[in-house]
Amino acid sequence: MDSRPTPLTTPIWLDERSGNVQVIDQRVLPHRERILDLKSADDAIAAIRNMVVRGAPLIGITAAYGIYLALREGAAPLAAEARRIKAARPTAVNLAWAVDRVLRRIEGVTDPDGRCEAARREADEIFRLEAERCRRIGVHGLPLIEKISAARGGRRVNVLTHCNAGWLACGRYGTATAPIYAAAESGIDIHVWVDETRPLNQGARLTAWELTQQGVAHTIVTDNAGGHLMQHGMVDLVIVGTDRTTRSGDVANKIGTYLKALAARDNGVPFYVALPSSTFDWDLSDGVGRIPIEERDPDEVRFVQGVEDGRLTRVLVCPESSPAANYAFDVTPARLVTAFITEKGVCAADEAAIRALF
Amino acid sequence: MDSRPTPLTTPIWLDERSGNVQVIDQRVLPHRERILDLKSADDAIAAIRNMVVRGAPLIGITAAYGIYLALREGAAPLAAEARRIKAARPTAVNLAWAVDRVLRRIEGVTDPDGRCEAARREADEIFRLEAERCRRIGVHGLPLIEKISAARGGRRVNVLTHCNAGWLACGRYGTATAPIYAAAESGIDIHVWVDETRPLNQGARLTAWELTQQGVAHTIVTDNAGGHLMQHGMVDLVIVGTDRTTRSGDVANKIGTYLKALAARDNGVPFYVALPSSTFDWDLSDGVGRIPIEERDPDEVRFVQGVEDGRLTRVLVCPESSPAANYAFDVTPARLVTAFITEKGVCAADEAAIRALF
Repeated sequence: MDSRPTPLTTPIWLDERSGNVQVIDQRVLPHRERILDLKSADDAIAAIRNMVVRGAPLIGITAAYGIYLALREGAAPLAAEARRIKAARPTAVNLAWAVDRVLRRIEGVTDPDGRCEAARREADEIFRLEAERCRRIGVHGLPLIEKISAARGGRRVNVLTHCNAGWLACGRYGTATAPIYAAAESGIDIHVWVDETRPLNQGARLTAWELTQQGVAHTIVTDNAGGHLMQHGMVDLVIVGTDRTTRSGDVANKIGTYLKALAARDNGVPFYVALPSSTFDWDLSDGVGRIPIEERDPDEVRFVQGVEDGRLTRVLVCPESSPAANYAFDVTPARLVTAFITEKGVCAADEAAIRALF
Repeated sequence: MDSRPTPLTTPIWLDERSGNVQVIDQRVLPHRERILDLKSADDAIAAIRNMVVRGAPLIGITAAYGIYLALREGAAPLAAEARRIKAARPTAVNLAWAVDRVLRRIEGVTDPDGRCEAARREADEIFRLEAERCRRIGVHGLPLIEKISAARGGRRVNVLTHCNAGWLACGRYGTATAPIYAAAESGIDIHVWVDETRPLNQGARLTAWELTQQGVAHTIVTDNAGGHLMQHGMVDLVIVGTDRTTRSGDVANKIGTYLKALAARDNGVPFYVALPSSTFDWDLSDGVGRIPIEERDPDEVRFVQGVEDGRLTRVLVCPESSPAANYAFDVTPARLVTAFITEKGVCAADEAAIRALF
């Protein structure tokens, strides 16, 4: 990986001077562009758990560098460190995939420096691989948008997306955003409805910031608005990312995704899920019943973060005594998904079609 | 109406000493219990437009008192004042209904003081009528909850509601909350999932406050969460209010209601709409196409209000340059509504059943 890019175009990189991993602190975007150093496996785990980094591919990449950082420290037994890293968040399947991949890569290497170097290179390779997969998701998703644009006689194409499945979540290009960026680059008039995505506002904070950086027209709406927009023909397609997708095509993604899929189905709007193959969980079939759904701190619901006169703060939005619940993800059943956009092409959301592609 | 109740148990009352109308400023609940004086028709219009008062029945009641205040001022021609009051907000049908009712009541009265007094009495009567209708919605809704409680062998009944259709929105009892309060009073173990209801958080702010006042168990969730809760059997029924319902049963309510109705249908959860007959718009049939949907200030989406260290403030939650759109309502088609709970009883959401009841 390169050193810190200016302007920021990737959420993670290696600082060649210090050997530390550096990441954009996504908790404070768009209000602050704060860079954090990850110096240890503990730092990597905290970054994943506290959502300094988030998004399935980026969680995997960060976890891979976590193994490198654990080896650089050299203190704790690696197997235990790997288990701790895998447990940082329960829903994203890329986490375990990336850790296992690095572990396999260093299996034969006995020299400590060599192991550390090999782990770093494998993490670099995972970054490169995920970025390339995202680029190819853009290549395969572009024709879907071109077709809609043509059908609309070149009039503006409106995409709705939920949460952030952009380059901030992935390394480069993004998953859900890759076809959008490819369309914008090819001259298609494209506009994105950005779901706010409570409780942590990854849409209003991160996707809106990313689209601003990339110069893509967008409008923020509350998570409540998508159904109304679709009823009135204001959404031509939905594209979202995913944190884990079963082999049968059930899609775990940020809480609220399922509601948008229902609205898309009810209004005949195509609902696409963009994902690299690393996000498929080949072991699971029943998504609603089997994918573990993380419950996070209720205060993420009770408080909202933002800026007041340039000062970063958070405000309580409910009665002091009222409890809240904070489920981070939901599962959209395969029957509501029009198709998957992957690095290998577009396929229907059923086991046979997925197996045929991979 | 009485003078200011302590503790607060109604959102509007007449101050006998000054002759002013007093209201709870619902913009700053639950953080502040601020009372505002409405001294003129302009004050009433501003209170409706700025959402000092909100909720279809309360908008109607406030509009009725607005005619009284216009007559007390005696300056502008009444027909023009009535038109201005009716235009304060476009979606709630109770607004025009209440104004027309007061106008009809004073038609024959020529003496200025008598007109003013008659208008005040008619507004009082509308308040009393809406409160009684809400009480009866509770009477008719209670058996629905009793049945679910019995089917669950007395285990806790979980209701999901969106926005605030409580006594804050209605005068007393509320619409959606009336069956809930009746169930709690009759000893049923009941718990309410409170949708936050962005952008103005009427759920997290108002419903949570009201349920706290009434001692009803509740948990605040983001607007994104309802689908997940229903998929996992954590919601036994949904009850919402409405701002305008067509004679064919299409339901305009706070933006996001439609998404919850879709999730309820997809999971076999009963979806009830509680309303007094004043909320039916007998002139309209096609809700999605014909009910005017208010667009409000985008800054209601871009900013979130709350308290920080006891200080009331608001924070920007997105990039400074990102635009937002703010549709205040959506329309839930009749096909997704299990039944209406009205002051006259429970009926199916179709024109024949509604006509048979009224």
